Amino acid sequence: MIVVMRKGSSQKEIEAVAQHIRDAGLRASVSKGEERAVIGILGSPYPELKDALEALPGVDQVLVVSRPFKLASREFHPDDTVVKVGGVTIGGGDVVVMAGPCSVENREQLLSTARAVKAAGATILRGGAFKPRTSPYKFRGLGEEGLKLLAEAREETGLPVVTEVMSERDVELVARYADILQLGARNMQNFVLLDELGKASKPILLKRGLSATIEEWLLAADYILQHGKSQVILCERGIRTYETYTRNTFDLSAIPLVHKLSHLPVIADPSHGTGKWYLVQSMALAAAAAGADGLMIEVHPSPDHALSDGSQSLTFENFKLLMEKVGPVAAAVGRKMARAPVAAPARRRAR
Amino acid sequence: MIVVMRKGSSQKEIEAVAQHIRDAGLRASVSKGEERAVIGILGSPYPELKDALEALPGVDQVLVVSRPFKLASREFHPDDTVVKVGGVTIGGGDVVVMAGPCSVENREQLLSTARAVKAAGATILRGGAFKPRTSPYKFRGLGEEGLKLLAEAREETGLPVVTEVMSERDVELVARYADILQLGARNMQNFVLLDELGKASKPILLKRGLSATIEEWLLAADYILQHGKSQVILCERGIRTYETYTRNTFDLSAIPLVHKLSHLPVIADPSHGTGKWYLVQSMALAAAAAGADGLMIEVHPSPDHALSDGSQSLTFENFKLLMEKVGPVAAAVGRKMARAPVAAPARRRAR
Amino acid sequence: MIVVMRKGSSQKEIEAVAQHIRDAGLRASVSKGEERAVIGILGSPYPELKDALEALPGVDQVLVVSRPFKLASREFHPDDTVVKVGGVTIGGGDVVVMAGPCSVENREQLLSTARAVKAAGATILRGGAFKPRTSPYKFRGLGEEGLKLLAEAREETGLPVVTEVMSERDVELVARYADILQLGARNMQNFVLLDELGKASKPILLKRGLSATIEEWLLAADYILQHGKSQVILCERGIRTYETYTRNTFDLSAIPLVHKLSHLPVIADPSHGTGKWYLVQSMALAAAAAGADGLMIEVHPSPDHALSDGSQSLTFENFKLLMEKVGPVAAAVGRKMARAPVAAPARRRAR
Amino acid sequence: MIVVMRKGSSQKEIEAVAQHIRDAGLRASVSKGEERAVIGILGSPYPELKDALEALPGVDQVLVVSRPFKLASREFHPDDTVVKVGGVTIGGGDVVVMAGPCSVENREQLLSTARAVKAAGATILRGGAFKPRTSPYKFRGLGEEGLKLLAEAREETGLPVVTEVMSERDVELVARYADILQLGARNMQNFVLLDELGKASKPILLKRGLSATIEEWLLAADYILQHGKSQVILCERGIRTYETYTRNTFDLSAIPLVHKLSHLPVIADPSHGTGKWYLVQSMALAAAAAGADGLMIEVHPSPDHALSDGSQSLTFENFKLLMEKVGPVAAAVGRKMARAPVAAPARRRAR
Repeated sequence: MIVVMRKGSSQKEIEAVAQHIRDAGLRASVSKGEERAVIGILGSPYPELKDALEALPGVDQVLVVSRPFKLASREFHPDDTVVKVGGVTIGGGDVVVMAGPCSVENREQLLSTARAVKAAGATILRGGAFKPRTSPYKFRGLGEEGLKLLAEAREETGLPVVTEVMSERDVELVARYADILQLGARNMQNFVLLDELGKASKPILLKRGLSATIEEWLLAADYILQHGKSQVILCERGIRTYETYTRNTFDLSAIPLVHKLSHLPVIADPSHGTGKWYLVQSMALAAAAAGADGLMIEVHPSPDHALSDGSQSLTFENFKLLMEKVGPVAAAVGRKMARAPVAAPARRRAR
Repeated sequence: MIVVMRKGSSQKEIEAVAQHIRDAGLRASVSKGEERAVIGILGSPYPELKDALEALPGVDQVLVVSRPFKLASREFHPDDTVVKVGGVTIGGGDVVVMAGPCSVENREQLLSTARAVKAAGATILRGGAFKPRTSPYKFRGLGEEGLKLLAEAREETGLPVVTEVMSERDVELVARYADILQLGARNMQNFVLLDELGKASKPILLKRGLSATIEEWLLAADYILQHGKSQVILCERGIRTYETYTRNTFDLSAIPLVHKLSHLPVIADPSHGTGKWYLVQSMALAAAAAGADGLMIEVHPSPDHALSDGSQSLTFENFKLLMEKVGPVAAAVGRKMARAPVAAPARRRAR
Repeated sequence: MIVVMRKGSSQKEIEAVAQHIRDAGLRASVSKGEERAVIGILGSPYPELKDALEALPGVDQVLVVSRPFKLASREFHPDDTVVKVGGVTIGGGDVVVMAGPCSVENREQLLSTARAVKAAGATILRGGAFKPRTSPYKFRGLGEEGLKLLAEAREETGLPVVTEVMSERDVELVARYADILQLGARNMQNFVLLDELGKASKPILLKRGLSATIEEWLLAADYILQHGKSQVILCERGIRTYETYTRNTFDLSAIPLVHKLSHLPVIADPSHGTGKWYLVQSMALAAAAAGADGLMIEVHPSPDHALSDGSQSLTFENFKLLMEKVGPVAAAVGRKMARAPVAAPARRRAR
Repeated sequence: MIVVMRKGSSQKEIEAVAQHIRDAGLRASVSKGEERAVIGILGSPYPELKDALEALPGVDQVLVVSRPFKLASREFHPDDTVVKVGGVTIGGGDVVVMAGPCSVENREQLLSTARAVKAAGATILRGGAFKPRTSPYKFRGLGEEGLKLLAEAREETGLPVVTEVMSERDVELVARYADILQLGARNMQNFVLLDELGKASKPILLKRGLSATIEEWLLAADYILQHGKSQVILCERGIRTYETYTRNTFDLSAIPLVHKLSHLPVIADPSHGTGKWYLVQSMALAAAAAGADGLMIEVHPSPDHALSDGSQSLTFENFKLLMEKVGPVAAAVGRKMARAPVAAPARRRAR
């Protein structure tokens, strides 16, 4: 942290700043330039200090040099983190595809979709049992009934399951059924839920908030990681901008940027990222080319009858087309598609 | 809801859309223009229908005519809602000032601030016991200890207390101590918490989300209102934009817009809205001129030593100056400042 | 400018950075902290240097300490700039109101509006003869014919005229007729036009760009000021955000912020700032309370028949109401409304 | 265009709206629903009409059904437009790479870069002779001297040249030297310049504005196309958002979206799109996978000494690496890289 004083700040003001720094248990290094004084802070400044120092008389700006996230940073952990779940490896180089319906609606819808995405090459099954909805008047998910259907689909197909947790009270419940717990975009700064997920027994998929910066996203990961957990997957799903022709603006540069700043794997969700089914294939290919560790794709047997997000879901046929095209792109950037685990006939998980 | 078909859509496609509408229990009114067909939907369409219809072949756009929020809308409830709490009335015409520290740090800090803001004319005491923090490494509040200090400050000064709830598990706890429960910006779409707050015994202060539209904000109010509660206060606190010279962009046009669209009272928080203490007074005056039902202002005995948000907090002296100036502006737009309740010597609240 | 090296950067890398700085004719002051080295730059670094230094090996960040704008800054010119035009003073403390139609449509429309706004207390007449339009299929203004009508309206009413220049080729033409030349939001970074306006004989009204930062806006002012001109007025007119219930998000905090950072007067345009006529009065009052040096308001004899921006224009009656309300608010913040100049019977200006 | 009346609007109000529509030479089709009346407009409504109708009593909303852009739309021109320049074809299926320095700085810098990008497989040479700069204190380009150097580089390498025009006065000058005239992001709504470019003899490269919607971008194309020109190339170069870790947010979904909405070719500029050289390769590969008709890449012999945009420029070596990787990605999506034209020994162009 560096404190830049105003032009013409007094010796008394400079000394007061230095004293404030020393009071915080740190060392202050004052250097006077031709125009103004600059005070370097040595040690590990408490992040709160910035606000405090900026309010002192004579201070022009306080510049933060270090990135505020720590546990999620590559400086802290230079090697890639690899997440392992039900025979699938995420972040180890292969491209993982998580596919399935936005919401679990009923047994037939889920099982048929699970079979279709497995047949097309998906490695993980997605599906929402608890649905965050902007309007209280919309379908909000089947709850535990939906979780049971997901577990049934896993047993049949062998695909591990990822599903969202919306409430701190449901963490244990969802962890009993699912293989990966998803934190949704609207809860990315639900700090109580982040803390609970840090204590959960399963890996976490952390979606980027609706208008979260990369920095805030990695700080949210730090909330989880500080509980000793290492199994966190990040998911870019589009950010809010002024553009209205797409539902969100899909920020694909987040993929290589996260790879540079962090050791955590990062996947891309072009379904939410664009909100338009006819853009999903192109953006899935682009994400693979950008080095994404995986894709999350919404698939529905009959998108025009979906109870949520129908306009961004692919039909079975279109998902199959996508999978046929994404393999060659992954190969072109030196990666291969992850293989789906084999369904064990008598596979059982603790309920 | 109106379905606009593509140019050249076939009769079969038009009929499929109409059938889909009828399947949903509604009536379809097809009218064919020179260029394209348009299908009006009569009845109360399930909002989900938009997504479903947009995915049908031949459909160009589905236009939503009605605002999706209902209970918060002025159409639903033409008269202004008035919130009453501890002898103070919010939304009844007078300008209410909620002031106090960002975080409750200790007894001395809180009590001195409570006395100072009361002396300057504030009507409600604010202060955080549970603090949402972007970084897990920052001060996160005193918890119940902070709530007790807030209750103590209320007993001494008579000022009702508003404080934030971050967890569904804490709703009852906070409601035992506080007079108004605040839902913070980062939790505006924490739908589980919204539902819990709808069942709470105290009025709710609902802050606008970091990048929430007015529509989403009013839908969040609907989440609370659908549980039968009517005592909800909205609070504009700035939205996220590309501008970096201010912490947020303070969207003051939200004040008259909410008054037009909704019956709920709306206050303004220029401390978070700007993030800079030297902008707070101007923006407080602007908010009063725009018709805000109240102001929420951060005040700290020594902002440069605050454990949170020091750079946006006012000193006692600057808060006093603000209060002296805001009265004449309120008067200029035909309003008067709300009076603080008198502290009862033996005032007691259920714990 | 301060160069922050990476943790573990080599002595050779540090020296290369220092040499680069010295090659640019500046002095480098290297100080090694416990974690990393920091290199201060003494002298007046060429702004380009930031990009160059950031690309050097071992460099983590280059922090810019000084604001990049100079001539528009209050550090450069501590006293308020006062713009004088046709007997009206802008920036001297009084609140100036510029009012009139979005576009000059015909003689009757313009003259009746000029009379009405003058009668209600406006001090300057606005009206567009050259109109920037997002769509090439919309009305683009009367051109010189419109300028002549504006001059005629000025002669009758005595109100000085402000109107937009869209092309470098029209600067002289418009300057022959108008008293203040307006640069529109979409041209705020039309650097060739900025240069031309810097050479013009009349004061410039510089609107903030559609998504311009405060910093870019003041840099645009520097483009004009570097030609020796001092008579520049800034105008906040709303910025682009994700919110769709208003046309723009009216950034009123820009008013006190510009007053702090710059010596130039700054006015507010609530018509474009909100895009909704029913929000204009509230936002005009808010702007006056925030300390704006003036207001720019669109008025039309029959807004629902306007050829442009009808939905944000006030009727004569609504403008009169606004003027009656804005005076008391200005008085409440210690200002008074500027008086309109008296029309000289035989008033003539050089053509 | 569809007019939606308010609940409870009177018959008189409905009739006034219908009359307004008929006054505009169009036909009105009134249909009364259970809750409210809706009035369809038949014919080709003047776009201005929306504003006018929205201001009428009893009107709730006016919904625009058609996209406002016409000449750029795929409905107007179903087949892909192919731009041909100097032996290179853009929009015909092959991926074109435009590469070179941000600014032309001197002969040696430009020629060495031209040779290097040609050797690596680029098909068109880019370089700025007139530079738009946010700050007036930065390097603003060599002007005509830069154009001459570009022409010299073309003669030696055979690469056609694309360069920016900043002023309506320079259109002819630049067209004498360059093969493609570029309109920069900051001038995308400089409507006078758009009109001039519509009359120019060379193809136009139209960059998306800093915060332009897709709709505004295509309307800007319409400004050019309405002069009878068909040779327009669109270029996505990132949009402004709240994220600060990248210079802009690179909106890659614009590539497939433009292909759907328009017949014009669209290329991607990852250098400006990200502002960070270490993100350029990943985003170039992503753009190719998304179906971009070309790439625009900044290359500099020594990026850390560049007079502009050094931090986003690639070295020769990194550009070579990028070109080696982009071919396989293009092939994976069924495209091939465009070949560079052969330099004719005595090649001459009209000056």
